[in-house]
Amino acid sequence: MNIVIIGGVAAGAKAAAKIKRLLPDASVKIFTDDTHVSYSSCGLPYYIQGNFKDYTMLLVRSVEEFKKSGIDVYLQHKVTKIDLKSKNITVNNNFNDFYVPYDRLIIATGARPFIPEVKGVHDYTNIYILRKIEDGIKIRNKMLESKKVVIAGSGFIGLELLEAFVQNGLEVTLIERKNRLMPAFDEDMSKIIRDRLESIENRSFKLITDESIVEFAGEGENASKVITSTGREIETDFVVLCAGVVPNTEIAREAGLIIGKSGAIKVNKLMQTSAVNVFACGDCCEEPHLINGQSVWVPLGSTANKEGRCAAMNAAGIYTVFEGVLGSAVTRCLNTTMSMTGFTEREAQNFGYTPISVTVNKNDMVAYMPEVGDFTLKVVADKVTGLLLGGQAVGSIGADKRINALAGALTGRLTVREFANNDFTYSPPFSPTIDPLLDAMNLLCAKLGC
Amino acid sequence: MNIVIIGGVAAGAKAAAKIKRLLPDASVKIFTDDTHVSYSSCGLPYYIQGNFKDYTMLLVRSVEEFKKSGIDVYLQHKVTKIDLKSKNITVNNNFNDFYVPYDRLIIATGARPFIPEVKGVHDYTNIYILRKIEDGIKIRNKMLESKKVVIAGSGFIGLELLEAFVQNGLEVTLIERKNRLMPAFDEDMSKIIRDRLESIENRSFKLITDESIVEFAGEGENASKVITSTGREIETDFVVLCAGVVPNTEIAREAGLIIGKSGAIKVNKLMQTSAVNVFACGDCCEEPHLINGQSVWVPLGSTANKEGRCAAMNAAGIYTVFEGVLGSAVTRCLNTTMSMTGFTEREAQNFGYTPISVTVNKNDMVAYMPEVGDFTLKVVADKVTGLLLGGQAVGSIGADKRINALAGALTGRLTVREFANNDFTYSPPFSPTIDPLLDAMNLLCAKLGC
Repeated sequence: MNIVIIGGVAAGAKAAAKIKRLLPDASVKIFTDDTHVSYSSCGLPYYIQGNFKDYTMLLVRSVEEFKKSGIDVYLQHKVTKIDLKSKNITVNNNFNDFYVPYDRLIIATGARPFIPEVKGVHDYTNIYILRKIEDGIKIRNKMLESKKVVIAGSGFIGLELLEAFVQNGLEVTLIERKNRLMPAFDEDMSKIIRDRLESIENRSFKLITDESIVEFAGEGENASKVITSTGREIETDFVVLCAGVVPNTEIAREAGLIIGKSGAIKVNKLMQTSAVNVFACGDCCEEPHLINGQSVWVPLGSTANKEGRCAAMNAAGIYTVFEGVLGSAVTRCLNTTMSMTGFTEREAQNFGYTPISVTVNKNDMVAYMPEVGDFTLKVVADKVTGLLLGGQAVGSIGADKRINALAGALTGRLTVREFANNDFTYSPPFSPTIDPLLDAMNLLCAKLGC
Repeated sequence: MNIVIIGGVAAGAKAAAKIKRLLPDASVKIFTDDTHVSYSSCGLPYYIQGNFKDYTMLLVRSVEEFKKSGIDVYLQHKVTKIDLKSKNITVNNNFNDFYVPYDRLIIATGARPFIPEVKGVHDYTNIYILRKIEDGIKIRNKMLESKKVVIAGSGFIGLELLEAFVQNGLEVTLIERKNRLMPAFDEDMSKIIRDRLESIENRSFKLITDESIVEFAGEGENASKVITSTGREIETDFVVLCAGVVPNTEIAREAGLIIGKSGAIKVNKLMQTSAVNVFACGDCCEEPHLINGQSVWVPLGSTANKEGRCAAMNAAGIYTVFEGVLGSAVTRCLNTTMSMTGFTEREAQNFGYTPISVTVNKNDMVAYMPEVGDFTLKVVADKVTGLLLGGQAVGSIGADKRINALAGALTGRLTVREFANNDFTYSPPFSPTIDPLLDAMNLLCAKLGC
């Protein structure tokens, strides 16, 4: 049995390891155009920050380790075509093309940073994206010799890099073309993120929203200036583009696989694509949302691992269902933890619910404790059914604890009334007497009359 | 309408404030034998530790504030009798007895430390218990002039005081008569608590289990020696008894109210006792367990607040149900967070389940992060139905986040299979790629064949 896997960062690496354990006699091959396999790309901002000095700590499993367990990894081998009829793929190794036949194909081609087509964007060597290990190394080296940087985009990676650069003493300008930071959150929560970040005294960063970059300018191979839509000119030593990601689905699309509305590959709960014996997993494919079952595209490392495992199980003939995601995500930027799960109010509206929400700002522990912090928690429910739909929390690290507690309720499809009965742990260093999540539930109950 | 409340720490204070808001024209009186009203007794170990210097930070609402909102507080007024027939109580103010009539009575008499009847226990002034504000003040003052202390008992308060005394440079001996620390946890988790605490280098404390104090000895008014069941003699400057608590139910019992098996007052979900118009709430009464509805006695500050609110609502004629507790609890001792929810394996067995459990030891974030810690998580489920029954986590602070996530699943009565679909937040400073809770769920699924 020939098992071929395209891509090997998270989903592909996980799928390969799993299927080899399930089918020890099968031939398992990973093809990737990357220079590394099986690594934690989510850790790159922390490597850049200098939280650890050696980038090899990001590597989960080396080519040699794969080899030892009987898996062949082909680095810098780009798959250019999938032939569903002949059941083979075309691989280019920078010298020539060759065919590799498969009995089961697992597509884990991931996603890549979106590059906005701005004047000059391709003309300079100091305009970076962050996706792969070598991107991280380049950005860290550039940071160490620089004083000023511009970050384009204020999503998760943009804010993680903001922290990294600020902690390394750089003067940072972050530009977001939308009218607010962290557009994955609701507008009111974006405002709180901004307020918290701008409350930092003597800060060496500037947050610009509602403004986009229209030109990169410079002499020679380095851009030295960023020009924005308002005519603002910002001098910089380098630029990182953090303008979101797009799924790598070109070869899947050309092969005729069904692509979802999001632009990612359509799969069922067994991670099967529209072609028999062809699976997809990780950032290149859609997934069902746990709350309403609809297809969404939420490219995240935790999901990629689960999907890789599920694809491998089914490719090995063991019926396994991946029920879906909640879109749970968290990150940190300096003094601010940002955590979310389920639908935002805006998403809930888009999906046809009648959302109702409450927002509370509460201490994360009893006020007399010296380490006390605070966070703002927004919980969204459906006005018609009382069903919990999602939550967002911004503030101290305690924000994340509450969002994960809420995620369990969403998985169980609990109503506000049901979840309001919850019994959280309490002790002065861990929570106020009444947990902020229960405060929010009680307020929601009052609004819903439940 | 005369509303009389007996006790005013957490449940009583909450009930008074709530009912006065609901029935502004009613007369609301709190009688308490305490010298303070409305305070955070859970904060006393942190006050003793010196996390904050002023004990008044523990006070939630003063007598004057109650007065301002129309509530009369009678400090150092001991209620000695409830007459259900005449609908009045007998109050002693240290000078004489008087009667107070009620239309609604709310009993919130709380609990008190259990004092083991050991030779000499009543003979010395340096043997303390910790319950009230003045206890905390006395213990802190004594600690500041002492070098050695013996703690009797290794429950929540015992371990919180261990931290307090160690952080203040004392040499601490903790003696637990059971064969393990923190007997509220399962035996295997107790062992982990002990191993973690004893892994602290150059520690100034000694943990003794399976040994009880048989005598306090000394000259004059101070005990200077503790003698144990093995003949061990321990010199000390003072002693704190942390041997558990007993509910204050004497007057309720004498009045003829039904008392539960636990020894605490029996109430229904409306916090009604067996007598009409008489309610009980807080540490003096039982509560239903959310998982199986059976009456349990779990005296905790968070519960007391909820029950006080519920009693007030129903006493005011507004139908309100308190669904119950999970026994969720958390505390910290030096390098160790201990968090639990639902049934332990032992409790599950006692309640007639066929418990099955898994225990995992995992990092609390990705291994390359400099702040990485680890914790051990045990999850208990019912083998017959696959229902989740409880969890315990011991280790780094991340332990508590997982227990609270599990509590939501218990509230929703989810099975292992259902909760295994959960989508937790992931980012290197917050969690490993696969959250430890999901690792545990996957292992449980494998054991259950689900």
